Amino acid sequence: MTLRVGVVGGGQLARMMIAPAVELGVELRVLAEDAGMSASLAATAVGDYRDAATVLEFARDVDVITFDHEHVPQDVLAALVEAGVAVHPGPDALRFAQDKLLMRARLQELGMPQPDWAAVTDADELQAFIDDHGGRAVVKTPRGGYDGKGVRVVSAGTEAADWFATLAEDAHGGALLVEELVEFTRELAQQVARRPSGAMRAYPVVETVQRDGVCAEVIAPAPHAGERLPQVAAQIGTAIAEGLGVTGMLAVELFETTDERLLVNELAMRPHNSGHWSQDGAVTGQFEQHLRAVLDLPLGDTTALAAWSVMVNVLGGPVEGSLDERFATAMAEHPQAKVHTYGKAPRPGRKVGHVNVVGDDLDDVAYQARAAVAVFLD
Amino acid sequence: MTLRVGVVGGGQLARMMIAPAVELGVELRVLAEDAGMSASLAATAVGDYRDAATVLEFARDVDVITFDHEHVPQDVLAALVEAGVAVHPGPDALRFAQDKLLMRARLQELGMPQPDWAAVTDADELQAFIDDHGGRAVVKTPRGGYDGKGVRVVSAGTEAADWFATLAEDAHGGALLVEELVEFTRELAQQVARRPSGAMRAYPVVETVQRDGVCAEVIAPAPHAGERLPQVAAQIGTAIAEGLGVTGMLAVELFETTDERLLVNELAMRPHNSGHWSQDGAVTGQFEQHLRAVLDLPLGDTTALAAWSVMVNVLGGPVEGSLDERFATAMAEHPQAKVHTYGKAPRPGRKVGHVNVVGDDLDDVAYQARAAVAVFLD
Repeated sequence: MTLRVGVVGGGQLARMMIAPAVELGVELRVLAEDAGMSASLAATAVGDYRDAATVLEFARDVDVITFDHEHVPQDVLAALVEAGVAVHPGPDALRFAQDKLLMRARLQELGMPQPDWAAVTDADELQAFIDDHGGRAVVKTPRGGYDGKGVRVVSAGTEAADWFATLAEDAHGGALLVEELVEFTRELAQQVARRPSGAMRAYPVVETVQRDGVCAEVIAPAPHAGERLPQVAAQIGTAIAEGLGVTGMLAVELFETTDERLLVNELAMRPHNSGHWSQDGAVTGQFEQHLRAVLDLPLGDTTALAAWSVMVNVLGGPVEGSLDERFATAMAEHPQAKVHTYGKAPRPGRKVGHVNVVGDDLDDVAYQARAAVAVFLD
Repeated sequence: MTLRVGVVGGGQLARMMIAPAVELGVELRVLAEDAGMSASLAATAVGDYRDAATVLEFARDVDVITFDHEHVPQDVLAALVEAGVAVHPGPDALRFAQDKLLMRARLQELGMPQPDWAAVTDADELQAFIDDHGGRAVVKTPRGGYDGKGVRVVSAGTEAADWFATLAEDAHGGALLVEELVEFTRELAQQVARRPSGAMRAYPVVETVQRDGVCAEVIAPAPHAGERLPQVAAQIGTAIAEGLGVTGMLAVELFETTDERLLVNELAMRPHNSGHWSQDGAVTGQFEQHLRAVLDLPLGDTTALAAWSVMVNVLGGPVEGSLDERFATAMAEHPQAKVHTYGKAPRPGRKVGHVNVVGDDLDDVAYQARAAVAVFLD
């Protein structure tokens, strides 16, 4: 009676579930958008995740459906639930990841610390918010943004005119999210795993370094954090997992402000780039934990294996030659580097892999990880 | 230009190469003996490894052929080499793993410490060896033994009459291996990875605990070893890897004698049960290292991630119910246990999985690993 997990989406997050699935003896099935995607080894089906019939057919004979991304439409999710399929995270949780206005409203109900925000429907409302918040603000499209897309820093209400125009044509309705521009010293991320039956485990809070809106580097645990900050971050993470009914892995991206508060920036209800360090740096990696959580199996230990882990993304690729040709050099110069590849063709800025290094000296660990990645990009 | 590794044999060793292959971006192909074997996820072919045409067909379009076991006949290996296929370990090394008389003779040439031994062709020669060695000896069939099979402790030359009779009909010729019965305090294992270009990396020497001739438990590193023993073990391992021209992973099983010598017991030229701890307890696990070695990629760091790792085999299965039904209990009671399953139906004494636990306190680590395995077998 082998347990079967069906993953909708064939990207690198699905790909990285393959390794722990094999070791746990879980059969992984993947509904990929196209042939030859990252998770192609386990891609048992290719099809459109926006088509309910396609997803329902894929979901037959699996014990649970989970996701590589949060973009499966609510009507498709509803069809799965109606057909009696276990879906984790479920539609009621996922809508908060799919709509940032819903998320902000729900976090406000839960009393979570977050930036000032508002729903604005035209340039005048946006201008009023800007005027109230020091002359600048962050405008976000509530749906479909990722890796910095759909996010714009503005200082005038007219700077989002194109988005307001698009919204007018959108069936989901007509508001943008505007948030105060937070003065932060750094960005953190808190991961929590939660089972359908309610049990949770928090990972150590990490520091994330973004470049051009994309995660470039993660340090686990967050340095110079003291005792209180990790506790507060874990409390925020578990409160959100519980309050939003998240099942599987949840990542809460946080700002640490200049006045030492933590404010919730974004949520992701799946394994997340900020947790890749755990593949090599924690007793239980986030991809194994996600499988355990969505199957409602007991969660694994989230303790770090060493004092420090550093994850550096391989963004893009070499100017000449291929990633594979750089492998030997990276491995030879950095034998402690754990290289993870996504099977994707390099393009400027595209996440095509990452490197983890684990050890007791942060300076050395960070140097080795950055230097190994540099070999791929030189 | 994805690198491709073809593995002959679809057992658990091939299965455990899948996870690191996915992360490294190496395409793994497996020639399995039957459908539904341990490595079925990557089994791109099913066929008889004793048939040269089958193996040659499988070997087309891969960068290197390697093995889940050492039983591929020399004529099949020779056909591969003749066809220009890279084979690691190669036929010249594998013959020492396939024939224990050849191995003993070669280790003697290399000056490696080993038990007294002789090739004996009849009961009288065997009796003479027994008489010279205190009235008892160990007789081994030179070919085909594993996990205690083909090994017999005897006190009279007549006790191997059946094997001598079988040998007379065997095309490979007519001698048994006889060895002195070594007085050992414990058994150890030394693993070494070696690239075709010659570079090597040794793992920490480990203690192995056998029950009924089968590996039951491994403690890494070997406790109470002092400084000298690990150095001597590593020297033996690297000398054998070099002297026998081994490529990929080599395991050297050792006796530690009552007079504090190390004697070579058996060799394995592949990932080995004594190295499963490294999946969770070392920077580079043996399955990743084997892939790197046979592809002639730079080898990874073999340092342990914590003070202690303990591996306990799941031998057989529950009296009632299935292994899968025990999962939740084992995971709930031992969240730090890393469970590895082989996708095999349990039978008494059959290796169907193992558990690794890593940590700083040996008593606790060993207790957690043993107790997690006990959940599967109760």
